[in-house]
Amino acid sequence: MKTLHKPVPPGGTIGIIGGGQLGRMLALAAARLGLKTYIYNDAPDAPAFQVTGQSIAAPYDDLEKLAAFADACDAVTFEFENLPAHAIAHLAEHVPVRPGAQALAITQDRLSEKTFVEKLGLKTAPFFDVTSAGQACEAFGKLGGRGILKTRRFGYDGKGQAKVSSADEAAKAFESFKGAPAILEGFVDFAYEASVVAARGADGGFAAYDPPENDHENHILRRSTVPSRLSAPQVEEAKMIARQIGDALDYVGVFAVELFVAADGALLVNEIAPRVHNTGHWTIEACACSQFEQHIRAVAGWPLGDPVRHADAVMENIIGAEVEAWQSLARTGALHLYGKAESRLGRKMGHITRLKPLTKP
Amino acid sequence: MKTLHKPVPPGGTIGIIGGGQLGRMLALAAARLGLKTYIYNDAPDAPAFQVTGQSIAAPYDDLEKLAAFADACDAVTFEFENLPAHAIAHLAEHVPVRPGAQALAITQDRLSEKTFVEKLGLKTAPFFDVTSAGQACEAFGKLGGRGILKTRRFGYDGKGQAKVSSADEAAKAFESFKGAPAILEGFVDFAYEASVVAARGADGGFAAYDPPENDHENHILRRSTVPSRLSAPQVEEAKMIARQIGDALDYVGVFAVELFVAADGALLVNEIAPRVHNTGHWTIEACACSQFEQHIRAVAGWPLGDPVRHADAVMENIIGAEVEAWQSLARTGALHLYGKAESRLGRKMGHITRLKPLTKP
Repeated sequence: MKTLHKPVPPGGTIGIIGGGQLGRMLALAAARLGLKTYIYNDAPDAPAFQVTGQSIAAPYDDLEKLAAFADACDAVTFEFENLPAHAIAHLAEHVPVRPGAQALAITQDRLSEKTFVEKLGLKTAPFFDVTSAGQACEAFGKLGGRGILKTRRFGYDGKGQAKVSSADEAAKAFESFKGAPAILEGFVDFAYEASVVAARGADGGFAAYDPPENDHENHILRRSTVPSRLSAPQVEEAKMIARQIGDALDYVGVFAVELFVAADGALLVNEIAPRVHNTGHWTIEACACSQFEQHIRAVAGWPLGDPVRHADAVMENIIGAEVEAWQSLARTGALHLYGKAESRLGRKMGHITRLKPLTKP
Repeated sequence: MKTLHKPVPPGGTIGIIGGGQLGRMLALAAARLGLKTYIYNDAPDAPAFQVTGQSIAAPYDDLEKLAAFADACDAVTFEFENLPAHAIAHLAEHVPVRPGAQALAITQDRLSEKTFVEKLGLKTAPFFDVTSAGQACEAFGKLGGRGILKTRRFGYDGKGQAKVSSADEAAKAFESFKGAPAILEGFVDFAYEASVVAARGADGGFAAYDPPENDHENHILRRSTVPSRLSAPQVEEAKMIARQIGDALDYVGVFAVELFVAADGALLVNEIAPRVHNTGHWTIEACACSQFEQHIRAVAGWPLGDPVRHADAVMENIIGAEVEAWQSLARTGALHLYGKAESRLGRKMGHITRLKPLTKP
C-alpha cells in the first residue's frame, strides 16, 4: 500500500539531485511557488548551484551525505534517471522520493522498459535481449533487417548505440560495448518524431501538454515545435499512451514519452524519460504552468497546474559554440542560458523559444 | 557625456540591492539568461537570498560593504527607489548602476517628479509645495477643494498620505508628518487607474507592455487586468507618455508610470516608479519576456525583449493571511509565493495570475 504524505507547505524544501540545466530550471520553478531548494550534485560549480541558497557537492553513492541531505528536505526528486537503485532506496527511508524507485528501475533499463510498454499493449519497435555476441547475431537473424544495438543502461544523446545492418556488425557492436547488456531494436522507418510531456500528481491526477514534433541532429535534439503535424485524434492517442504509462508506473512527477510516428500514422513508443524533458522546454513561455513547475507541484504533493497552451512555439537548443551568438539570439526570442562555464562540442548550453499566436487550440 | 559600457556577458554578475519579492523575481529572471546574481539586503533571511548563490546582509549606507559588493558585480540595480543618493553615487564609482542617480533623484521626490512631469507638458493633478503648516493652509486655499497631503519622500502603499477637506485638516496633516516636506495634491475624480510598465535599453531602445487597469483596496494594489478599458488610441498615448518620460530621464531599465484615467478620457500621470512594478507581474505568464527579464536585459546592456502579450491576464495580489489558502489558490492559476516566513496584515505574500485566450491583440 502506498504511503500518503501531506503536501510540502510553502517555505518547505525540495531536494534536487543533479545540478545541471534541468535541476536549475526545476529550482527556478520551485522558487516561484515559495519553496526552497537544496541541490545535490557530484561536482562543484554546478549550474543549479547559482540559483539556490543551499547546495552540496558529493558523490551520488555517498550514503551518509545522501542521508543528511534527505533529512534537510521535505521531498526529494532528481534531474536524471541513472541514480543507483540502492541510493534511491536509501533516500526513501528518510523522505518521500518522487518519482519512486519502481518507476526508475523500469525506465533505467531499456529491456525492462520495452517489456513493460509491450505488456501494456502499446506499440514499440521489435526488440531482442542481447547478452553475448552470439545472441547479437541470432537476434539480427530474427529481426530480418536493419537494427540498432543499444546498451540497456546509461545511454543518452546517441551514446551506447550503434546502427547495424548485418549479423557480423551486430556482434562487433556488442563487443564494442565491452560486455554491457544490450538490446537489438528493429529500425523504425518513421515519418517523424514526437513526444508527450505529462505529469501525474500524488493524488493520481493527470495532465499532459500538447505533444511537440521533434527534430534531432547527430542524435541530439535540435528543435521542438508545437503544434506538431499530429491530427487531433493522434494528439488524444498520444496523451492516452502517456496516461496509461503514468498510471501503470504509479508515477508521481513529470515524465516524457518519446514517440515514433509511422507513415501510416501509428504511434510507437520509443523511450520513457522519468523526468522533465528537453522537448518540454517550450512550456516555460507557452503555458502558465511549465513542465518544471508541474514537476515541482507533483513532487510537493500540490494540485497539478493547467497544461493548456496559450501560444504556438518553436524551441531550439543552443549547442556548443552556438552560444557565442548570444547577443543576436537574445534579439529573436526567449533566450535561456544554463550558466555553464565552458562550451564543448555537443554540450547543451541553452535554448531559445520563439512564440507565435495560437493557431490550433 | 554618457559612458558606454560593454554588455555584461553570460556568466557575469548582476548586483541587486534589496532582497524582497522584486529582488527575488529579478534574480530568477537573471538566471534564465545565464547571469549570476549577488543580492544585498539590509536584513538576513531575505526572500531573494533563497534564489541566489551569493548574498550579503548589511546596512544600505555601509559604504565599505557597498564598495566590496559593487566590485564583485558587473552591473548593479535595485528593487526599490529609496536608496540614499550618496550610496548610489558611491556605487557608481565602482560599477555601472542602472537606472542612474539622476532618474532616482527625480523620482524619489514627489515635488521634483511632478515638476519634471509638468515640464514635459504631461497632465498631472494640481500640486503645491508644502514645507510648513501655514503653507499647507495657503495651498489648500489655492486648490479650492479636496486634496491629499503627501510626504515628498519614502511614501508607498498609502503611507505618508492624508486626505484633507479643509485648510485646518491640511495644517494638522502636515504637523502629523513631523516636519517632513510635503506636497498638497488636488483630488482627482478619476474613472479608473491604469499603468504603463515600460523599459528603456542602454542603447536608447524602448519597449512598453500593454497598460493594465488597476484596482486598489486600502491603498494596496488588489488586481491588474489586461486588456484594460483603454481604447487603442489611449493605449498608444499611454505608451507615448512612458516613452517621453524614459527618454527625458535618460533611463535604463524598467519603470512604471501610474495613470489616472479621467471621465473625459484624459490620462494624468500620478506617479513614476523607477523599478519593476507590481502592476507588471502578469507579464511573467502573458509575455515571452517578463518585466523582470526586461529589466535585467536593460541593466546588463542586452537588447530588449519583445513585450508582446500572448494572452489576456488578471493578476491578483495575495495579501496577509490570504496566503493560508495557498492550496486552493494553486488549483486556479499561476501561483507565485515570495518565500516570506511570516504573513502580516497588509504584507504582500504572493500573487496569482490567471490567463485567458487573447481577445484584443
